Amino acid sequence: MTQTTRIALQARPKGEPADSDFRIEQAELGQPGEDQALLQTLFLSLDPYMRGRMSDAPSYAAPVQIGQTMVGATVSRVLESPGGQFAPGDVVLGYGGWQSHSVEPVSYLRKVDTGTAPVSTALGVLGMPGFTAYAGLLQIGKPQPGETVVVAAASGPVGSAVGQIAKLRGARAVAIAGGQAKVDYCREIGFDAAVDHRSENFRDDLAAATPDGIDVYFENVGGAVWDAVLPRLNTYARVPLCGLVSVYNATSLPEGPDRSGVLMGTILRKSLTVRGFIQTEFVADHFADFQREMSGWVSSGQMKYREDVVDGLDNTPEAFRGLLAGRNFGKLVVKVSE
Amino acid sequence: MTQTTRIALQARPKGEPADSDFRIEQAELGQPGEDQALLQTLFLSLDPYMRGRMSDAPSYAAPVQIGQTMVGATVSRVLESPGGQFAPGDVVLGYGGWQSHSVEPVSYLRKVDTGTAPVSTALGVLGMPGFTAYAGLLQIGKPQPGETVVVAAASGPVGSAVGQIAKLRGARAVAIAGGQAKVDYCREIGFDAAVDHRSENFRDDLAAATPDGIDVYFENVGGAVWDAVLPRLNTYARVPLCGLVSVYNATSLPEGPDRSGVLMGTILRKSLTVRGFIQTEFVADHFADFQREMSGWVSSGQMKYREDVVDGLDNTPEAFRGLLAGRNFGKLVVKVSE
Repeated sequence: MTQTTRIALQARPKGEPADSDFRIEQAELGQPGEDQALLQTLFLSLDPYMRGRMSDAPSYAAPVQIGQTMVGATVSRVLESPGGQFAPGDVVLGYGGWQSHSVEPVSYLRKVDTGTAPVSTALGVLGMPGFTAYAGLLQIGKPQPGETVVVAAASGPVGSAVGQIAKLRGARAVAIAGGQAKVDYCREIGFDAAVDHRSENFRDDLAAATPDGIDVYFENVGGAVWDAVLPRLNTYARVPLCGLVSVYNATSLPEGPDRSGVLMGTILRKSLTVRGFIQTEFVADHFADFQREMSGWVSSGQMKYREDVVDGLDNTPEAFRGLLAGRNFGKLVVKVSE
Repeated sequence: MTQTTRIALQARPKGEPADSDFRIEQAELGQPGEDQALLQTLFLSLDPYMRGRMSDAPSYAAPVQIGQTMVGATVSRVLESPGGQFAPGDVVLGYGGWQSHSVEPVSYLRKVDTGTAPVSTALGVLGMPGFTAYAGLLQIGKPQPGETVVVAAASGPVGSAVGQIAKLRGARAVAIAGGQAKVDYCREIGFDAAVDHRSENFRDDLAAATPDGIDVYFENVGGAVWDAVLPRLNTYARVPLCGLVSVYNATSLPEGPDRSGVLMGTILRKSLTVRGFIQTEFVADHFADFQREMSGWVSSGQMKYREDVVDGLDNTPEAFRGLLAGRNFGKLVVKVSE
């Protein structure tokens, strides 16, 4: 029997997840069957959507049950594949969650190309975050040459891909990021302008960076950034909405007045399209194109990416708190083993 | 010189428009030029969007200036057409506004077919409201056979057309209306179910009327009706948004908490499409189809409509207040002359 070290959800967090909401423990994994594989986790992915899985509020996906291992994508090494679908040593993308080893159905696993880029990129620029950017921007945002595309959390794995794909499609790309280092990085990777949402002058800076208004706002943050973007949106602007990380830890509604009517009024007056999405919606029709295009851009250097690698499974809860607070810089992954 | 009796905007209304916000006066019209026509107003249209024109808040259209004649669509008889583009006696759709006579550029005028239906329908089922329903439902709502389409203000010119077009496309149509008479009328014209938003049991009634949830909500009301609809929307539901009549007279924001984040969160979680629109966006591509299809449905009796005709220009301000309060029953027009 193989032992796994796993992080289970011990309690549903109220606000920011606390260490006491998780339990690190040893557990025994069963023997893999003919349609399963035994895996050793190399990297686990930390993504904002996981905050939703810790909650039992209605969502598009079932919550993690108390006592269960926290879910999430992983890049792992195959230790045993009794049905022969994989060879020992193969590197695969799967959904092992927050643990050192896992047994997973082989149908959930996809072999990772170890030649193009570091295998951890299967969790980032070449994985779900990259595809979220690609599908949301191109299928919903539909940027036209010369239009202005704005994205928040722009140094992150989704935002940085949004900006670079916008540029590759001939649009002007404007970054919103938190702090000077991230703003500088956004300029380095090709954004036409970058503004700091922590600055006192944020609204003025955003106006200066978007002299022709905003045609596409790729929304993954919400809150005060959205409030500043809304008045800059042009008629017929598109707002692909894939996340609201600024409010995931909220325990109560913000104080009034109630501005939901103002939001609807703005959508009406400007003929806006606001479209929520989860990338899975687009996998069947667009994932193959994504893999081909994005791998090409990464290989040619047209798509830059940055990873923030935290070492050691034990540090996962603290790293996740940092993700929700914007303390990571680049795609956040935890290195679980060599 | 021809005299016109006109209603000018005297002050910008605060809240519900008051009589003192308007001035009824006589004015002299200039002689029509070669590219103009002199018209006598038969019917003038009253529509919720006019409340926006009385305000100088930012909008998709310029406000009416103080002292100017209130704008709006009209059906008129041609008295003089110096350039010969029309014959005296022709009935035309134009934008004469709230007055008895007008001089308009002939390029703004469209001859009304007097054979299909009463000429006032050019302001309703065969005009802008009908086209708003047609374009918004089919181009944005995209109802599929068997899906559930819900519309508020369902006995009005837009809502009643939305429901009947939804039925013609094989969808299930559910009406929301205010008061028993309007609810009964909606059932008469073919809605599968109709609920009264003034009822204490409105939320339960809406749930009972939409057992499979809501796939398309055609939004023209806002406020409490929208709050009740939101939890019933299915994943991937579409919300064409062409009006928010419930808030047009609002002078301050509603009390908190601020639920705009909840609204964005729901759009995200359910992968909703919320799309504001003004019908003019779709005229070039779809108005000819609309005229052909809608005229056919009216002629064959498949499209029922109801008009609320107020007699006399003097009664226009009071009728407009009634429109915003939902006191009209059917498309509201003012009969200005025989």
